[in-house]
Amino acid sequence: MAITIQSLQNSRIKELVKLSRRRRRDERRVTLVEGVREASRALAAGIVPQEAYICPGLMVDEAAQALGAELARLEAAGALRLFEVTPEVFAKIAYRGESGGVVLVIPYLSHTLDELARRRPTFLAVIEGVEKPGNLGAILRTADAAGVDAVIVCAGATDIHNPNVVRASLGTLFTVPVVEASSEETIAWLRQQGIRTLAATPAGEVPYTAVDMTGPVAVVLGSEAHGLSPTWLAAADARVYIPMRGMADSLNLAISAALLLYEVVRQREGEGAGGAQVAGG
Amino acid sequence: MAITIQSLQNSRIKELVKLSRRRRRDERRVTLVEGVREASRALAAGIVPQEAYICPGLMVDEAAQALGAELARLEAAGALRLFEVTPEVFAKIAYRGESGGVVLVIPYLSHTLDELARRRPTFLAVIEGVEKPGNLGAILRTADAAGVDAVIVCAGATDIHNPNVVRASLGTLFTVPVVEASSEETIAWLRQQGIRTLAATPAGEVPYTAVDMTGPVAVVLGSEAHGLSPTWLAAADARVYIPMRGMADSLNLAISAALLLYEVVRQREGEGAGGAQVAGG
Repeated sequence: MAITIQSLQNSRIKELVKLSRRRRRDERRVTLVEGVREASRALAAGIVPQEAYICPGLMVDEAAQALGAELARLEAAGALRLFEVTPEVFAKIAYRGESGGVVLVIPYLSHTLDELARRRPTFLAVIEGVEKPGNLGAILRTADAAGVDAVIVCAGATDIHNPNVVRASLGTLFTVPVVEASSEETIAWLRQQGIRTLAATPAGEVPYTAVDMTGPVAVVLGSEAHGLSPTWLAAADARVYIPMRGMADSLNLAISAALLLYEVVRQREGEGAGGAQVAGG
Repeated sequence: MAITIQSLQNSRIKELVKLSRRRRRDERRVTLVEGVREASRALAAGIVPQEAYICPGLMVDEAAQALGAELARLEAAGALRLFEVTPEVFAKIAYRGESGGVVLVIPYLSHTLDELARRRPTFLAVIEGVEKPGNLGAILRTADAAGVDAVIVCAGATDIHNPNVVRASLGTLFTVPVVEASSEETIAWLRQQGIRTLAATPAGEVPYTAVDMTGPVAVVLGSEAHGLSPTWLAAADARVYIPMRGMADSLNLAISAALLLYEVVRQREGEGAGGAQVAGG
């Protein structure tokens, strides 16, 4: 049976609140997953939480109850520690509104380039210096849909374990392998693997639809405000642009990423079975 | 010289606050534009505000000062009424934080299908029942970049004059013609114009990249939660899907719109000069 926590002064509750800060997450190498959909996807992806906090009074719908039952099974099997909390306590640990009464503490998810090499990837997204967690989450969601082998996040400013990344990714952070590495390491590694790099930049020489993406390829995008660094622009095998006819400065980063990733999908389906993919829901 | 308003009880200030409500906007058929970039784009697009409210102490950077000078010129020419407000008053009328000290009152922008017909459009986006202003704004931004002739917004739930649409569109609401019309009117009008309709739906029969988009075409997308109505699905000339390989339910609406709109761009550039577009900034 789960222990019930009623006090806002409980040391576990205080620790959960501290995990809203990146420094604390990095120290413990754990992060928080909030929400029934996100938590269910974490479990479905085989992630085993260290701890789970549920507020039974808030877990009213069917999906929430199924999740509660699954967490109880995992606790009974000794796989995690489960705590029930009162609505007052839950309000303190929940960082967003309608989260369905569940917060998980899960280990960091990062993979290494070495691990990634073993999968022999042929379709990668590289994001350098993304600033907004919501954009990184949106890119992960699109990367999942496009079927990339992994997303490589370069430059330390980005915190892939920010709860807002988990949220905006709709849980795809759990299923798309994500690697954190420096730009220099990543460039060297991609060369070693024989993966062609296509850097997206408004100053590109060729439209993104006019380059061959049928071989092993990494699509590389820079930050919202500054684009790609000179390092990446110089190292890339090709610099591609997205045609823009209007008055706005540029497309949103997540939109640009989607156009490039789905151009890879289009070119590869074109050469194969003629696009006979099953549609998503 | 502009009049200075110092009182929070000033009737014009009270009226501006009321314009945050849709009902009041619809009654007066005016909306608010806040922010230096957005206001500058409205003026650049030839929109003449009825009133402008500026807080000189907040208009510090070069773009803000240029905008202030332009508004003063328009006032001197008798084109609009200009008011200076104190920081306290500005804080009351500003609906978001860093808005650079300017709020415009502009007339509603909607076009009609009749007006649109005169432009002989060959590239349209139709959005039915979009729920989030941010998504509509993002779609307008992408539609601007892709060079659509107009965006048609169907079903009354969407308020294209919501200040958050203006904001998320980065001012492209001022440059992309937007028509509000019912689905039935729009379907009849598109048939009459000989424009082919491609409805995006996960249950589509054909991938979006496998249909011909080189002739006059309207890309049709439904709401975030419910997709397209049976009316649109039945009326469309083709139902297209975006291949999805991952675990997430679906792509974000603005991302789906971008993929379809840029597929039109790709197919048309492919037939023409080979994609020799000038890149955006």
